[in-house]
Amino acid sequence: MQVHVALMPGEFSDLDLTGRVALVVDVFRATSMVVAAFGAGCLRVIPVASEAAARERAAALAPSPVLLAGERGGDPIDGFDLGNSPLDCTPERVGGRTLVLTTTNGTRAMLKAGEAAAAALGALTNVRAAAQWAAAQRRDITVLCAGEQGRFSLEDAVGAGLLVAGVLRENPTAKLSDAARAAHSLGMVYGAEPDRLKQDAAWARQLHRRGRAADLEVCIHIDVATVVPEIVAGAVVRGGDSLTWAGGAVDTRTGRGSGPSAT
Amino acid sequence: MQVHVALMPGEFSDLDLTGRVALVVDVFRATSMVVAAFGAGCLRVIPVASEAAARERAAALAPSPVLLAGERGGDPIDGFDLGNSPLDCTPERVGGRTLVLTTTNGTRAMLKAGEAAAAALGALTNVRAAAQWAAAQRRDITVLCAGEQGRFSLEDAVGAGLLVAGVLRENPTAKLSDAARAAHSLGMVYGAEPDRLKQDAAWARQLHRRGRAADLEVCIHIDVATVVPEIVAGAVVRGGDSLTWAGGAVDTRTGRGSGPSAT
Repeated sequence: MQVHVALMPGEFSDLDLTGRVALVVDVFRATSMVVAAFGAGCLRVIPVASEAAARERAAALAPSPVLLAGERGGDPIDGFDLGNSPLDCTPERVGGRTLVLTTTNGTRAMLKAGEAAAAALGALTNVRAAAQWAAAQRRDITVLCAGEQGRFSLEDAVGAGLLVAGVLRENPTAKLSDAARAAHSLGMVYGAEPDRLKQDAAWARQLHRRGRAADLEVCIHIDVATVVPEIVAGAVVRGGDSLTWAGGAVDTRTGRGSGPSAT
Repeated sequence: MQVHVALMPGEFSDLDLTGRVALVVDVFRATSMVVAAFGAGCLRVIPVASEAAARERAAALAPSPVLLAGERGGDPIDGFDLGNSPLDCTPERVGGRTLVLTTTNGTRAMLKAGEAAAAALGALTNVRAAAQWAAAQRRDITVLCAGEQGRFSLEDAVGAGLLVAGVLRENPTAKLSDAARAAHSLGMVYGAEPDRLKQDAAWARQLHRRGRAADLEVCIHIDVATVVPEIVAGAVVRGGDSLTWAGGAVDTRTGRGSGPSAT
């Protein structure tokens, strides 16, 4: 089993995902939001590239209960039902619903992941479950970092690195590309102190300035969810809950798992 | 002062270096070789993009004493005088000479760096001196990782991270991009154990299989040189030797400096 991390979206166009497993990471906030949405009973999430495509898709799905969700540049989109904050995902709002989601970076990576033989979403919140799911597919793995406007983003590389660590726990002989090795190192450094991401990641500082500090807190909790949102035929559906955990109980007091870095 | 690291050559085309300082890193082996060449009394190094351009340039410079140097895919080029091993750079071979150099990744990054207001080459061997030189320019800094065939390479990210650490030592208020922050973390991890690069970096394993283990040993010595090769009008010339060191004596027994990670 070979593991690669695409550290930047600039790599996506040349990336061949044929026969591989893809994991998408967009820690702040798209994949964290989708994990939260399924935790709150959302039916499915349809990622689309643009605001216009979102409105078209929602119209086509009527009269079933559809919500428009997403952001541009971190801000909610006019006339949409939800932004892309995990905190928007209460059972009352998303339970039993389909979300049509468009975000600046995350949905682009989700659409690319659709080219793989199997694909799912990873976040810090579900990192162990997502890694277990990926390792269980017994294929080579590519982690796609959503990044920020085509650029590298620290939090996604850290998320990717913790996914790599989780895969290595399941399959210690997995071969890492240089980028996977680098991400793994970053995962070890920041996995031990995820709070540092709030200061060190440029996008976290931006979100903080925009009054989204509460979102950051939710997104940096490691291993508090066992949901693995899977991409099947262009839609993200709930999967992965039935996985056996290798360990790492969730501390209900702090809401934080023992985390891959602790084992 | 703002510091960015271009982790992959795929970023170069969109990178605006106007008014900035550029540092090129190609640890295995181009920038390590150029540092060694100047240490051995080389007059100047002219980076060119192709084998044909190298032959043309050498012909145009005749009858002055010019050597053709370079590699493709890690192997010496037929009819060239030197490969790109630092061990080729003895005073007998390169002293007082001009090298015309073409390599798979390194010279491409050097040509890009020529767009900056000032540019120089960094390697593990001269990392502290190169960082001091860059910080002394009092401009924003971009470190260009040569990478491997357009892809991320671990050793160059580590070299970039040790350069970032060196710049921070000179200017603790420098602002780091996410990529610079990630490289810095990798620099701290691998700077403490540079031997690990021989196993963890894919290109190091390749070079080892091709009988280039001795090159690897030379390239992973941190801070054994004070030469800072500068790019001036398309040529690399010797510079930077007159800098005052902030500390970090070279241990003449091991040939290794105390290194940025130790301070």
